Amino acid sequence: MSDRHIFNDHTTLVARSLRGLVAMSPRLNLIPSLKVVYRADADRSKVSLLCGGGSGHEPGTVGFVGEGLLTAAVAGDVFASPSARQVLGGIKAVPSDKGTILIITNYTGDNLHFGLARLMAQSQGIPNVELVVVGDDVSVPHSRGKMVGRRCLAGVILVSKIMGAASEDDMDFQPLVKLGRSLASNMASVCMALDHCHVPGRSGEFAQIPAGRIEIGLGLHNETGVFNVAQPGPEELIKTMLDLMLDQDDPERAFVKFKKGDTLALMVNNQGGMSPLEMGAVVDETLVQLEGRGIVPVRIFQGIFMGSMNMPGVSLSLLNLNNVSADTGLSIATLMEYMDAEHMSPCWPVNQKNVYPLPANLRDRKRTDAFIDVEAEHKAPAPTGPPLKVDPATIQRALTLAAQDVVALEPDLTKWDTIVGDGDCGETCEMGGRAVLAAVKNGLGADGDLVHLFRELTEIIDEACGGTLGAIFSIFLAGMTTALMEAAAQSPQPVVDAALFGKCARDALDTLGQRTAAREGHRTVMDALIPFANALAATGDVNQAAAKCRAGGEGTATLTAKLGRAAYVGDRTDTTMPPDPGAMAFVAVAEGIAKAVDEKTVNGV
Amino acid sequence: MSDRHIFNDHTTLVARSLRGLVAMSPRLNLIPSLKVVYRADADRSKVSLLCGGGSGHEPGTVGFVGEGLLTAAVAGDVFASPSARQVLGGIKAVPSDKGTILIITNYTGDNLHFGLARLMAQSQGIPNVELVVVGDDVSVPHSRGKMVGRRCLAGVILVSKIMGAASEDDMDFQPLVKLGRSLASNMASVCMALDHCHVPGRSGEFAQIPAGRIEIGLGLHNETGVFNVAQPGPEELIKTMLDLMLDQDDPERAFVKFKKGDTLALMVNNQGGMSPLEMGAVVDETLVQLEGRGIVPVRIFQGIFMGSMNMPGVSLSLLNLNNVSADTGLSIATLMEYMDAEHMSPCWPVNQKNVYPLPANLRDRKRTDAFIDVEAEHKAPAPTGPPLKVDPATIQRALTLAAQDVVALEPDLTKWDTIVGDGDCGETCEMGGRAVLAAVKNGLGADGDLVHLFRELTEIIDEACGGTLGAIFSIFLAGMTTALMEAAAQSPQPVVDAALFGKCARDALDTLGQRTAAREGHRTVMDALIPFANALAATGDVNQAAAKCRAGGEGTATLTAKLGRAAYVGDRTDTTMPPDPGAMAFVAVAEGIAKAVDEKTVNGV
Repeated sequence: MSDRHIFNDHTTLVARSLRGLVAMSPRLNLIPSLKVVYRADADRSKVSLLCGGGSGHEPGTVGFVGEGLLTAAVAGDVFASPSARQVLGGIKAVPSDKGTILIITNYTGDNLHFGLARLMAQSQGIPNVELVVVGDDVSVPHSRGKMVGRRCLAGVILVSKIMGAASEDDMDFQPLVKLGRSLASNMASVCMALDHCHVPGRSGEFAQIPAGRIEIGLGLHNETGVFNVAQPGPEELIKTMLDLMLDQDDPERAFVKFKKGDTLALMVNNQGGMSPLEMGAVVDETLVQLEGRGIVPVRIFQGIFMGSMNMPGVSLSLLNLNNVSADTGLSIATLMEYMDAEHMSPCWPVNQKNVYPLPANLRDRKRTDAFIDVEAEHKAPAPTGPPLKVDPATIQRALTLAAQDVVALEPDLTKWDTIVGDGDCGETCEMGGRAVLAAVKNGLGADGDLVHLFRELTEIIDEACGGTLGAIFSIFLAGMTTALMEAAAQSPQPVVDAALFGKCARDALDTLGQRTAAREGHRTVMDALIPFANALAATGDVNQAAAKCRAGGEGTATLTAKLGRAAYVGDRTDTTMPPDPGAMAFVAVAEGIAKAVDEKTVNGV
Repeated sequence: MSDRHIFNDHTTLVARSLRGLVAMSPRLNLIPSLKVVYRADADRSKVSLLCGGGSGHEPGTVGFVGEGLLTAAVAGDVFASPSARQVLGGIKAVPSDKGTILIITNYTGDNLHFGLARLMAQSQGIPNVELVVVGDDVSVPHSRGKMVGRRCLAGVILVSKIMGAASEDDMDFQPLVKLGRSLASNMASVCMALDHCHVPGRSGEFAQIPAGRIEIGLGLHNETGVFNVAQPGPEELIKTMLDLMLDQDDPERAFVKFKKGDTLALMVNNQGGMSPLEMGAVVDETLVQLEGRGIVPVRIFQGIFMGSMNMPGVSLSLLNLNNVSADTGLSIATLMEYMDAEHMSPCWPVNQKNVYPLPANLRDRKRTDAFIDVEAEHKAPAPTGPPLKVDPATIQRALTLAAQDVVALEPDLTKWDTIVGDGDCGETCEMGGRAVLAAVKNGLGADGDLVHLFRELTEIIDEACGGTLGAIFSIFLAGMTTALMEAAAQSPQPVVDAALFGKCARDALDTLGQRTAAREGHRTVMDALIPFANALAATGDVNQAAAKCRAGGEGTATLTAKLGRAAYVGDRTDTTMPPDPGAMAFVAVAEGIAKAVDEKTVNGV
């Protein structure tokens, strides 16, 4: 966990953060003196919903204010409850003809200050102010937490989302209070952390979880976990958390009843410091294990809902919609509509109202149906016109000789690349050469169709050769392919001779030049490719082209690298520098082709 | 920065993360072998938009696939470009009759592999495949980066959002390519970091930025910053970043032209490891400084768009809509509609389509108009019926004596609380007592209206007394207020005598009991409050009640604390333990009231 912050003055941080939030949210207002964020477009014909508590849990709760979600939120300092005066100001900011519900997190300070604000509001004649206290944590054993009830975790945000949609749907005050309490009591959550978080402005030492250990069963404020254990693998970790949430035989837990076939919603909450990449994998592992228990959640919400500053940790929450439906008389379909309903809050992360209902062809898919394990077929138009033909024997001979020469050069390539690069050039080129040899054995070039040949060659080199060099060879080949396709499409077709290859090679170099900044003189493979293509186009003589290619390749030994890893070697100009291995690999290719052409004149070349 | 992860095996992490993403997004499909995420509901009559690159930048780019945004995204391993074969699979997965645009991040590997994939697609007869290369970073000096162009930062996601909406709006292939390139060239971004990030599975040492220093001008992959400086304050930091983006006289930058009055959109990107609390403050500081330069962005997007694992850092991006409008012929209004347009991607974080257009009363507000610095007035119904009256002189005398006794007890309270608590009880109670004395001097109780009195007393104690004790006294007083309001509303009104006070005190205790788990015997203020209220209600004799109160308060010395800080002292039962200071403070109050009643019988009591 990092103790580094841009803002180290926590006395002004919260106020500034709220200003930033409201500035980017034109339908929100802020009362700076009270740290109250509220809807500028609030509708007093709907029940007002207030949430709040200490700061440091953003986006909870201030980021969830907006039509269809919270009507206002009241922020304390970092991890400190707001005062009753602040909450009372929030209540007054969003007057409602139906009533006001304070959705509070079950911690001592929030209970006292929101509870007091409710009484103050009542004593000032504000009717219908009620509390919905959310405690969804199941980690603290019943016998230890029974006096104060369950702690609040991220479930409070899902409670707020559903209540917000119900309020927007004109639900009356008492049914909405009842819905909120049922949601809270049917939510089971557990939090884990890899380390504690750090509060800006707190100097000196702060509690850290020792490396190799993790904690399970934390509150929202860096509270020590109920369990401190050696770090398990992700599978064991998620299993432990789900056991705490779901085990109906645990006499110290089972706060929420779950039975086979219940309809559940899953919330996977980032405590603030997990990378989104890992969060996706946490969702996957959780779903796999839930499936193993016969549970397929109908909705899955992932993101930072209620965090602990930048704490690297995760909480899981499961909401049992069957129980809520039984408590409230609302159908499960209605509850799902509330989860999906549109809203205007800045931070509820998923736009489920657009996603659901699903079109007919996507309905009732199993989770695994979405995982397509074959390449989808692009309905590409079939190429038209006659192929551009070449003598198969000669072209296969050229491929074979070029590939053999490259394979034979592997020791030199490796030696040179060990000096100027990361040493893998020899292996890369050898693998490419061997792949071509295998492909020729399997019939590459046998149909004499030049476009086919270069198209396949492109894929073979791309598959076999990694790194920048493999990509550059592949792009050159792909450029050759499209240039040959254009030639094939001409009417009449051009004669297939060395000059045509040269012209296509120059076109391919133009294509390649759009993807790499390397040019002649930069000590790269281009110092061999460019002279080869130019000479071939100009002379139509593959031997001359190969000679120019070798001169260019060997000349790289005296050049200073401008790009790639070799650039880091610096401006050494001593004569012991080897030539660029990529360039020399292409010299081997060019000379292999020249040998094949010498052996036998290709049909039409 | 943290090197702790739940998933330490990076060879499977990306695949699992993509499975998690697609499982929670029923309109997305995954090709696991190619790490391609694509729309299951893609519409081939629209231009297909593919983005992608190395993983570790989530939600970019896979989290932005969905109707109205990307059609597909292709993921490599962490910080490694996907292969051309993967990209080609992505192109084939979302065939389009109009064409396919590859929106790529300007890094070497992505340029090569996406470029190659485009050529491969062309060579397979797939028409209209074009690249839009996004490089929005302005930190690398022109003279150093001119060979490879600007690097890509988070701006690519805003480019994708606007292009996605334009594609959905049936824009044709060539205009969309032109729009994409104009967006990319008119975006200016800079990234800063407090520290580098850590890649799961990378063992041993990793680069860290020394404490007290930060870097400005980083790429997306932990690249070293262009500037390494002593950490400035947030104001200086943002100024430096904005100067790099906006200074039109910097010969090495000014990649994007900005002129007075241009319409700009702002994107504030969390690199992954910043707390959302701080991100709000970054938005605030950025807006303040932009306003100082005469710039008020028309849209502000904040969140994790394109991160670097869990890197604690921020990038800022400014898009000049005027320039894009001039390039493309699209109106600024149309470009804003595209930014706001609905979409179904899981991770585009703000639901602007719901927010805009604004209702008439919120249109054309200045940023500061949203900051209301007075408490909004709740239109509470005026209390009805006659007040519940009491003799003002007696009640003021009772308040005075009780408050004086509490103030006088301060040294004892402080001494006792230093032993069992955090030592602030004496100060808290003294401040409450002095506030009541000042209020009486200013007329508290002078109107003889009991409900008024207790309502004001509640606010005075809440303001003056912090901590749990202050909240508990305030809630008790608020409970008294509402109980007295109910009594006042009765017809006929009850007689105001000690028994009525006792009854109301017991009702107030019921209210208080809902907010705290403390009961008699838990060594808290309740051990004085409960016997006082019970005796007063039962006997109607304030002296007897005060005596019971003292017995209860002094009895706490032999009790074991169950709640609050005193609980940490443990199970000490030795006789040197002091009584609970909160309980003894209330004993002083009770005895002060009793003295006043002894001095003169209150009218009606």
